[in-house]
Amino acid sequence: MSLDKVLAHVDADQDNALARLIELLKIESISTDPAYAAECNRAADWLVDDLKSIGFEASKRETPGHPMVIAHNDKTDGTHVMFYGHYDVQPVDPLELWDNPPFDARVEDTPNGKVIRGRGSSDDKGQLMTFVEACRAWKAATGSLPTNVSIFFEGEEESGSPSLVPFMKENAAELKSDVALICDTGMVEPNTPSIVTMLRGLVGEQITIKGPSKDLHSGMYGGPSINPIRVLTRALGALHDDTGRVTLDGFYDGVPELPAQIAEQWKNLDFDEARFLGDVGLSKPAGENGRSVLEMLWSRPTAEVNGIWGGYTGEGFKTVLPAQASAKVSFRLVGQQDPVKIRDAFRAHIESFLPEDCSVEFHGHGNSGASSMAIDHPAFEQARGALSDEWENEGVFVGCGGSIPIAGHFQDIIGTQSMLIGFAQDDDSIHSPNEKYDLRSFHKGIRSWVRILAALN
Amino acid sequence: MSLDKVLAHVDADQDNALARLIELLKIESISTDPAYAAECNRAADWLVDDLKSIGFEASKRETPGHPMVIAHNDKTDGTHVMFYGHYDVQPVDPLELWDNPPFDARVEDTPNGKVIRGRGSSDDKGQLMTFVEACRAWKAATGSLPTNVSIFFEGEEESGSPSLVPFMKENAAELKSDVALICDTGMVEPNTPSIVTMLRGLVGEQITIKGPSKDLHSGMYGGPSINPIRVLTRALGALHDDTGRVTLDGFYDGVPELPAQIAEQWKNLDFDEARFLGDVGLSKPAGENGRSVLEMLWSRPTAEVNGIWGGYTGEGFKTVLPAQASAKVSFRLVGQQDPVKIRDAFRAHIESFLPEDCSVEFHGHGNSGASSMAIDHPAFEQARGALSDEWENEGVFVGCGGSIPIAGHFQDIIGTQSMLIGFAQDDDSIHSPNEKYDLRSFHKGIRSWVRILAALN
Repeated sequence: MSLDKVLAHVDADQDNALARLIELLKIESISTDPAYAAECNRAADWLVDDLKSIGFEASKRETPGHPMVIAHNDKTDGTHVMFYGHYDVQPVDPLELWDNPPFDARVEDTPNGKVIRGRGSSDDKGQLMTFVEACRAWKAATGSLPTNVSIFFEGEEESGSPSLVPFMKENAAELKSDVALICDTGMVEPNTPSIVTMLRGLVGEQITIKGPSKDLHSGMYGGPSINPIRVLTRALGALHDDTGRVTLDGFYDGVPELPAQIAEQWKNLDFDEARFLGDVGLSKPAGENGRSVLEMLWSRPTAEVNGIWGGYTGEGFKTVLPAQASAKVSFRLVGQQDPVKIRDAFRAHIESFLPEDCSVEFHGHGNSGASSMAIDHPAFEQARGALSDEWENEGVFVGCGGSIPIAGHFQDIIGTQSMLIGFAQDDDSIHSPNEKYDLRSFHKGIRSWVRILAALN
Repeated sequence: MSLDKVLAHVDADQDNALARLIELLKIESISTDPAYAAECNRAADWLVDDLKSIGFEASKRETPGHPMVIAHNDKTDGTHVMFYGHYDVQPVDPLELWDNPPFDARVEDTPNGKVIRGRGSSDDKGQLMTFVEACRAWKAATGSLPTNVSIFFEGEEESGSPSLVPFMKENAAELKSDVALICDTGMVEPNTPSIVTMLRGLVGEQITIKGPSKDLHSGMYGGPSINPIRVLTRALGALHDDTGRVTLDGFYDGVPELPAQIAEQWKNLDFDEARFLGDVGLSKPAGENGRSVLEMLWSRPTAEVNGIWGGYTGEGFKTVLPAQASAKVSFRLVGQQDPVKIRDAFRAHIESFLPEDCSVEFHGHGNSGASSMAIDHPAFEQARGALSDEWENEGVFVGCGGSIPIAGHFQDIIGTQSMLIGFAQDDDSIHSPNEKYDLRSFHKGIRSWVRILAALN
């Protein structure tokens, strides 16, 4: 049976697959920092070459930002699947917290098994390579793919995807497929393969509050002169009330209560709140009072300050009153929350704290509503079955706290339903120092796609 | 008459005096950053050599931090004055806002006359050199100083003076004098020489609030995980109430109302609130409601956040929940406010905002109460007369918003009364990019000290 042959090939080819991933991880494709543009380009070229080597018609497509990679195979019958991943990665700071250089990925033994350690190993190079390797194994073991496959790699996912929507609109015909497969999510626990059917949206804002025309000495000006940090901390400190609710006007408009049936499913998941929080040094859920951790993560909206800076932040002390202070703030959205209204409510909130002598500059970063998948599409049960065959536990339908706007774009722009299937683990430290991907996720991830490609055929 | 001869020498020697100052300004003596320790040492050596060249017995005195410079002249009769200044300077960031390199000082024409532009030109190298040049002129024109002069230069004033008190205690006998002259203050307006008789104290604190054990991804953890920036902004945003008062428990204990007589003097000063604020882009006093700008600056206490940082602060966006967030906070004190109690009240305030899963680290920077001078000491009227002879307007007794702990130390440790006389202007941009010192301040400052040395004789 060809499925077994392909799975056997995956097992036999593990070391080579790992070597290829490590090569890709050496490319410093940080998309948010313009200094790394050439590296992003290099990652795209590497993927084009690799996809060509296994028989895809692959090409790099220029955009105003970092390039896309598009590939098609030559099979024209069967279900047409479009696989999406992103080759760009997060910045690496604080660099001093990495035990090894972030772009010199290596395999390490850990108490929980072998891992590949390096920036992008989990998010998302390791994940996208699970699919590429599954295709390679089908080709190597049988000479062809079991279904019609296209591939779409983005290089701006970690920087708000500015080119994504225009590109999808311009190339909608080429991107049309029966189902989109997105590999940028995790498993609810290490033995339970998970298909994400609810995704939170994201609104990001950078704000700068300006006061005096220059930095002042607090001895000469302290008292009569407004300090922009005072204004910023007052405004941001008032984003939440004492019960953990976000205070913006109309923030909870369009936030649905979880249907009883889904709430029940989530309660039955093998999810340990104390372990989840304890793994990152916490013990008490910090979201809205009276909600479970999974609700806070998957079905409730948030407001977070992701960065703040102003004044003197170096060694020692400097009694400066700074001319300005800044912050990066983001909101995770659920249900029918309207990103535009949330952004407007935030801006109005900040402006309500501005004294006469201060001004504010806003700069938007990203703007996507939440999305829900139509799980009655037959591909969902086919994929869940394939995943259940590969892993210890049955596959489950879950939510996801992150924002993966591509799922909504496939729906809205292309008219294609998305399935989000990924093999990342909670402790992968994505976006943090010492990011890793379990070798088990990599290996069983490849095998999962091998099975799913057969099941969707 | 020898005073005229000395003043004429000052006028004739202006270019040389300026060249010497520019040489000193090239030394990058930033005391707060350990990377510049050798430069601080070099500044001390330069001063020792210069003082020796005009006949002082001068030496560098090592401390656990940056060295002191002590010099004595050989005259044993007459009033013994001890002059204090500091050769260290503030950091230069943000470097990109400087029009010229901060340590390549140069003379510039401006609409208000010529200035010397560079870090330390006003605070405090330009100021301390006014006194050195006055001594040089006396020696050059008459062969001797009119009174008994010692000099004391510090190299840690901009970094909390950690070695100052131990050094003064160990060398109290050598530092004993009839009156201390401190040149580190400004003029209330460009034509009115000013003797500072009230100084605010300073308490500095650096705080770091810690939450999760590592940086987290807000998609994976946002909601259930506490964000230390949220805690920090709530706590700092609550430091002031809506009327501009500081909210710490007992903060106003020991803050006296201004005596009616002093309030009247300040009202009569040629001080333009609108111009003072307008020069730095502001229009509305930000201190306690119902107080004048001079009260806010000279006789009212403050709380200011001088620096804040946490999370991702680079280009683009990163949806991180940081493991920690920090701030530098300082308080200007007046009257009998107790620095220890203020520090304790601040720490208690922060702790009252800490949720169960957060901890806080405090690190103190500086700790000095306010001080008031005994203006019935005869030197005050002698100096005021000398200043009135040099400048357009009569000399005045004023307050100062800054903290110059040395004045209190001369009083408490040595038993010597201090007079604070300086020639800085409001627009000198001390502690900011493009710091400058008016050539007029430099030249008339030298002439002022020439006159004061004669008057105190």
